[in-house]
Amino acid sequence: MNRIFTILVLAGVPLTFVGSMMHWSSIAMFIICSVTVIAISSFMGRATESLAIVSGPRIGGLLNATFGNAVELIISIFALQAGLIGVVLASLTGSVLGNLLLVGGLSFFMGGLKFKRQKFSIHDARHNSGLLVFAVIVAFVIPEIFAMSMNEAKTLQLSVGISIIMIVLYLAGLVFKLVTHRGVYAHSEDNATTEEHEEPEWTKKKALTILLLSTLAVAYVSESLVHTFEAVGEQFGWSELFIGVIIVAIVGNAAEHSSAIIMAMKNKMDVAVEIAIGSTLQIAMFVAPVLVLISLFMPKAMPLVFTMPELVAMATAVLLTISVSNDGESNWFEGLTLLAAYLIMGIGFYLL
Amino acid sequence: MNRIFTILVLAGVPLTFVGSMMHWSSIAMFIICSVTVIAISSFMGRATESLAIVSGPRIGGLLNATFGNAVELIISIFALQAGLIGVVLASLTGSVLGNLLLVGGLSFFMGGLKFKRQKFSIHDARHNSGLLVFAVIVAFVIPEIFAMSMNEAKTLQLSVGISIIMIVLYLAGLVFKLVTHRGVYAHSEDNATTEEHEEPEWTKKKALTILLLSTLAVAYVSESLVHTFEAVGEQFGWSELFIGVIIVAIVGNAAEHSSAIIMAMKNKMDVAVEIAIGSTLQIAMFVAPVLVLISLFMPKAMPLVFTMPELVAMATAVLLTISVSNDGESNWFEGLTLLAAYLIMGIGFYLL
Amino acid sequence: MNRIFTILVLAGVPLTFVGSMMHWSSIAMFIICSVTVIAISSFMGRATESLAIVSGPRIGGLLNATFGNAVELIISIFALQAGLIGVVLASLTGSVLGNLLLVGGLSFFMGGLKFKRQKFSIHDARHNSGLLVFAVIVAFVIPEIFAMSMNEAKTLQLSVGISIIMIVLYLAGLVFKLVTHRGVYAHSEDNATTEEHEEPEWTKKKALTILLLSTLAVAYVSESLVHTFEAVGEQFGWSELFIGVIIVAIVGNAAEHSSAIIMAMKNKMDVAVEIAIGSTLQIAMFVAPVLVLISLFMPKAMPLVFTMPELVAMATAVLLTISVSNDGESNWFEGLTLLAAYLIMGIGFYLL
Repeated sequence: MNRIFTILVLAGVPLTFVGSMMHWSSIAMFIICSVTVIAISSFMGRATESLAIVSGPRIGGLLNATFGNAVELIISIFALQAGLIGVVLASLTGSVLGNLLLVGGLSFFMGGLKFKRQKFSIHDARHNSGLLVFAVIVAFVIPEIFAMSMNEAKTLQLSVGISIIMIVLYLAGLVFKLVTHRGVYAHSEDNATTEEHEEPEWTKKKALTILLLSTLAVAYVSESLVHTFEAVGEQFGWSELFIGVIIVAIVGNAAEHSSAIIMAMKNKMDVAVEIAIGSTLQIAMFVAPVLVLISLFMPKAMPLVFTMPELVAMATAVLLTISVSNDGESNWFEGLTLLAAYLIMGIGFYLL
Repeated sequence: MNRIFTILVLAGVPLTFVGSMMHWSSIAMFIICSVTVIAISSFMGRATESLAIVSGPRIGGLLNATFGNAVELIISIFALQAGLIGVVLASLTGSVLGNLLLVGGLSFFMGGLKFKRQKFSIHDARHNSGLLVFAVIVAFVIPEIFAMSMNEAKTLQLSVGISIIMIVLYLAGLVFKLVTHRGVYAHSEDNATTEEHEEPEWTKKKALTILLLSTLAVAYVSESLVHTFEAVGEQFGWSELFIGVIIVAIVGNAAEHSSAIIMAMKNKMDVAVEIAIGSTLQIAMFVAPVLVLISLFMPKAMPLVFTMPELVAMATAVLLTISVSNDGESNWFEGLTLLAAYLIMGIGFYLL
Repeated sequence: MNRIFTILVLAGVPLTFVGSMMHWSSIAMFIICSVTVIAISSFMGRATESLAIVSGPRIGGLLNATFGNAVELIISIFALQAGLIGVVLASLTGSVLGNLLLVGGLSFFMGGLKFKRQKFSIHDARHNSGLLVFAVIVAFVIPEIFAMSMNEAKTLQLSVGISIIMIVLYLAGLVFKLVTHRGVYAHSEDNATTEEHEEPEWTKKKALTILLLSTLAVAYVSESLVHTFEAVGEQFGWSELFIGVIIVAIVGNAAEHSSAIIMAMKNKMDVAVEIAIGSTLQIAMFVAPVLVLISLFMPKAMPLVFTMPELVAMATAVLLTISVSNDGESNWFEGLTLLAAYLIMGIGFYLL
């Protein structure tokens, strides 16, 4: 698998360069760039993991938390620069839906086909569900409703205020998890010990180099990718919303998707759930507010105001995920329920 | 009790025939038909139960799941044929509200007056609450919000897509409960053994005959019933919405109502909750989508788009039911809370 | 602390009198009245507690339940008389938000800084969360949505109906807690015994006298306070909504705020949670409906229809509180999450 990704990267980056020089068709460029981004993100994931092991759990957790969604962040910055605010908000929505319903659903479903009942930490599930409610139900819903009776300037002020609060709370959450309450809720010591004996795949130097190069490469390819959206949308009859919510979200999160499912099939549900829900929280509480702040230096500022369908899809996805995962257990049917919800929303965004 | 129902059926069906021949007043026909439908549905319930015992738990579960709401299905089909889409959606709403709040509330309240704390399976409660969130909060809310920025044709496409997904998930849920995870979450073996030694009231042949005849009779009487709605509404000052949400729902679910309450007073809360919530899920995940699909062959297709008051009533009823039943325990005050919510919604629909 | 409050009351009441005679500036009067109200309410709290101990837990519970929010009730009645319906609804909203997010958040946060994990009764938390969903999600949301397609007269009828149902359910809840299910859910006998040996601060006669005098004093000062709102709002650029939601709510609930936090820092989380959530329920299920009924005898009747931002803020605050407190445990991070939500809403109402 890793070898295939290596080949894809070594072929994809030059092809992107040649293609954009020679003005290949948008659809060809769209496919090349998408595949290349997915391949590069697998390298970023491996580099981050190696660094995390080398630098110990605290710095490692921080690294994972910031580089875990680096690809989305980079794609989104280019989209902001191109003034595609709608696409950015849609791809944030798509990441939330994709992580909760698609990744979560596939993990529960595939894992559940092999194991009758899979368990994961109830404490983590509840900690995460509180944050999901905070991020999506409070921090995303409030500006939406309040913005209805506000002018644009005030909406932006509210968005900036909320963004700063969210980032502070996100960082406080890392302190809580990695410093003050580390291991407080762990049920067994085994997990902790096993983790610390893990061997990094790459040395610190090699990992850093690969991380740097991958970031540059992903940035380069993403820029080309963003510019294909409009033409591809027109050709396939896809709306800006559908491209953002479904396509960009799948490309941007492909790496996490596969590793969560692999973990679920190894019955490591704690890790699978942490990837699915943890990644959602990163997007909602860190990537989204950071993009709002970055957008202040861009031609067009982005308020934290989603379209009503986006907001309702996210809020209902959160309620469904919480009610399904609240008991610290999963099975194939719960996975299927999440996938069915994803499919319903996918059809909705396609038709919109 | 059973004898009274026998008399009511033997008197009600001929009276319906005579009355519709002789053009009796709408109110007389409304009362005759309503009482007759309630009486016949008690026969359908007994026949289904006998068949379920004879054919073993798997086929039995399937039978219960399909014939359990046959009366609503039949009434609704006639209403669809008469173009009364508003009444059909309202009566679906009413069935959801009635089962969750009225049946659930009366069961908790009456049972709670006799027993201080009543327990039921937490696993079933959570399984069901995941599905309630899926059906009402995701599958009903999404088309409502998305339809606001869609034309009619696309709204119908979305409704059909969602309906198919819901039916597939509903059937998968039966496979989960009756095949792959049968008894996985059972706490004690006693329940299972007792159930299997149950004696059917009627032989297979007799039960099948009664089921067939009752279905025909209910179909006949329902048609007459549906045609009285308009006139009765005008005379009492009831809106189409109130007739659908409160009247049709109570007539269509009367049989389940009484058996759930009887079970609760015998401290068999597992059965009472299964009737109240299981019946809601049947309506939302099976009857509603099947009606959408059937309506495609009718003069006027029915999209899965409720009015805002209907949707909000259902969604808040689901949230209340979940937060009240989540702990696997009930008492009289929780029952009263559900009844109070039903009363509030009833007043709301009456005034609307 | 108590001495300071005594001085503040002895200085504040005459100052209010002199100030309103001599037409001091609105801002001066606003500050004097606010501080005096806070100081008097501490006396009312102590008198109620002494009476509660003397009269046994049942009557005591009833006393606490009715006098606990007497200050809000009195301020609101004067505001109703002045026709400031918007301010009344806003201050009800503010009391709900303030109790759940600010009081609850500060209790969890301050307590969590001293203790790693604090526990409180899961049974109470679930009993309360069912009622929170009933009061805010059902009884406040339903009239809002239904009122959109109703005329004013019907909206008022619905509001009155809902108000009566809420008061009845609230009283039934007291019967449940203090009579039929008293101690049913208690984990240890110690708490109950300790409570009963408590010594009242004041004798019955002294407590009654102080309660009477404080009520008169608070009524007098509140009337002056209400009349400063308009001028203060203009001077600081605060909207009616912000004054009601943030300022009135903090002044009206200051006494409860401090005692909840003191209890949390003593690790008596059961009491802290009971103050925060119990007080919210009093406001939502008793004070709000009583005000609706009182308003019928006022120049302008008040329907139970909040503005959309108010309603959404309350509903999301309830969902967040439930998802954070559902596990019967708290820590500093959960407190911070609640505070962050309060801050977000505060900014929103300020900008509105």
